[in-house]
Amino acid sequence: MTPSEANRIVEVRVGSDSGDYPVFVGRGALDRIEEYLGAHAPAFRYAVITDEHVAPLYGARVLEACSSASGGAALYTFPPGEASKTRKSWSILTDELLDAGCGRDTCVVAVGGGVTGDLAGFVAATYLRGVPCVQVPTSYLAMIDASVGGKTGVDVQAGKNLVGAFHPPRCVIVDPDVLNTLPQNERAEGLVEAMKHGAILDADYLHELVRSAGPLLAADPVPATAAVLRSVQIKASVVTRDEREGGYRQILNFGHTIGHAVEVASGFRVGHGTAVAIGMLIEAELGERLGVTEAGTADSLAVSLGALGFDRRSAGDVDADAVMSYLASDKKARSGRPRYVLLRRVGSVAEGEGWSHTVPDELVREVVDGLELASIGGGHGAR
Amino acid sequence: MTPSEANRIVEVRVGSDSGDYPVFVGRGALDRIEEYLGAHAPAFRYAVITDEHVAPLYGARVLEACSSASGGAALYTFPPGEASKTRKSWSILTDELLDAGCGRDTCVVAVGGGVTGDLAGFVAATYLRGVPCVQVPTSYLAMIDASVGGKTGVDVQAGKNLVGAFHPPRCVIVDPDVLNTLPQNERAEGLVEAMKHGAILDADYLHELVRSAGPLLAADPVPATAAVLRSVQIKASVVTRDEREGGYRQILNFGHTIGHAVEVASGFRVGHGTAVAIGMLIEAELGERLGVTEAGTADSLAVSLGALGFDRRSAGDVDADAVMSYLASDKKARSGRPRYVLLRRVGSVAEGEGWSHTVPDELVREVVDGLELASIGGGHGAR
Repeated sequence: MTPSEANRIVEVRVGSDSGDYPVFVGRGALDRIEEYLGAHAPAFRYAVITDEHVAPLYGARVLEACSSASGGAALYTFPPGEASKTRKSWSILTDELLDAGCGRDTCVVAVGGGVTGDLAGFVAATYLRGVPCVQVPTSYLAMIDASVGGKTGVDVQAGKNLVGAFHPPRCVIVDPDVLNTLPQNERAEGLVEAMKHGAILDADYLHELVRSAGPLLAADPVPATAAVLRSVQIKASVVTRDEREGGYRQILNFGHTIGHAVEVASGFRVGHGTAVAIGMLIEAELGERLGVTEAGTADSLAVSLGALGFDRRSAGDVDADAVMSYLASDKKARSGRPRYVLLRRVGSVAEGEGWSHTVPDELVREVVDGLELASIGGGHGAR
Repeated sequence: MTPSEANRIVEVRVGSDSGDYPVFVGRGALDRIEEYLGAHAPAFRYAVITDEHVAPLYGARVLEACSSASGGAALYTFPPGEASKTRKSWSILTDELLDAGCGRDTCVVAVGGGVTGDLAGFVAATYLRGVPCVQVPTSYLAMIDASVGGKTGVDVQAGKNLVGAFHPPRCVIVDPDVLNTLPQNERAEGLVEAMKHGAILDADYLHELVRSAGPLLAADPVPATAAVLRSVQIKASVVTRDEREGGYRQILNFGHTIGHAVEVASGFRVGHGTAVAIGMLIEAELGERLGVTEAGTADSLAVSLGALGFDRRSAGDVDADAVMSYLASDKKARSGRPRYVLLRRVGSVAEGEGWSHTVPDELVREVVDGLELASIGGGHGAR
């Protein structure tokens, strides 16, 4: 992508049961938010929801863009971090909107990372049985993954994202220029999901991400725009085909069965991207052992993820027993058994029953142990 | 309807954005629940949700019908009454299902009145971002109104049903024989919604309800089946045309703008049906004063509702100031003003902007005062 291409705003369409919606990707998209809201989410008033980190960075700017609505606009904030993605925060935000008298003609505008998009999206999904929502992602993770596809929700004691709803946004506004305010470790974490997109559907894209890893980690806007756009296109194509994760959308869970288990087993000390990186390595190895995945795939992914600073020891000291125990109780399991997305090779997923597979527990245990997950370590992505 | 017609199970189809679903209405429908679940909501396991009153009456029977599922079935109960329709009860039930290891292949079966349908429906709507739900209503209110149309949700401090989701059931199983266990005052309250259906769309039906009010209040299964079937057909036709209440579905809110205000102003001492009966009388009077509703309509409705034991004094001592104050802050108002569905005459709604109207506050105040709402009284439906 050339600098002038990066400055052009591209519209990607996402199909949804409740109507298609656009994702606007390009530098300067944030300056055009008023135009996008007017065209795709006109409302009597706007409730801008963001966390206390992002509020001073972009809150006022988005609020200003919303303020010409007849009913006005207001900012609602919550403490940053995954610890806020709870039913309690959802209740507090909901009650704040009710106290402010927001009616059914209100539109929620979610400005922030994945936590904000999921939490504010769930507020919108359930407020007066659902009001429109617009997503304005400000992190790689949210741009590349969380803001597209309509998943919203919160974490509960039993696990992450176990309570929520499908509530597609009216539009998504992606301005890669905001990535320069994102902390470095969050950039690396978010780019793991981009590599996952390459790993499941586009080997060339994965190689391109590896080649430009340095500039991407530095939030250089030209490669960042290209990567975000390609990931949005991939995500859009998948969720358009299967919005409700009845089948095909499961391929986006590559790396996530083990990844979630690692997150939980670490008590969420390990970040999502780090956990998914490890999950991708382990699940590639599982596929190779089963003869489903071409030999050498795990090594190839290890090289790719290494460009972002991740390796098999990035999670540090995570208890393998805790990982296995979480897998045995996985709340999203169908018919009581965890399921794994397995690659055929880099860029291609192996079809199983409904795009996922069961794997013998003993083999999972062996590979988890073999990857020295439980050893003391810590790469770039550890925290 | 003859006794043999009442014994025949009729299937009414309801249209929905997420697919049509059937409502099975007839005596003995509960005996065929296993067949209906198998055909319309097959699942690995079933979570039967009901309150502690209904559990001993029908819980075991429904649980038995679900028990042949490979993953089995379990009963989850909560204390009866509107006070349970909260985010807290929703959280507790959700966590119980998670603790039991219910996965995405679980189907929720809601057995009970309107509170159960709304609460269990909201659990299903948000559990792992949505699992299937089947409604088995056991009250007139739930059969006639709440179980059809996909509205689910809970009450919050600021008002009733302000948090929720549209989550259409896979099927609804309506067996009028279960009405014999319903307390008498709840029968009268539920039948108000049937009279509302007649008032907005079918004058002949309203007259039939008046003629058979005695047997209906006694839960005589033959007229009860006929009334429930007609109301389900009316409700199905309305929500099929406008599931999300974008416009036409608003007509079902006749009597409800004032009705909700009376409920809230009374601190929920006044039942929903009683409040809607009073709301229908006041809103008919408002329409007449505005020249929108034919003269004599309010008197005609007073005679009809009188057959169920309701009159303008049925709410007892409700403060008119509190009613006006709630209306001024109505959380579901669009653009900050409460809206009213007005009749043209019995059996026909007057089109306004999007099927509802604004009404000058002074007029509302005058009619509310004139109906002696604030006086001490109490008819059949008071409690």
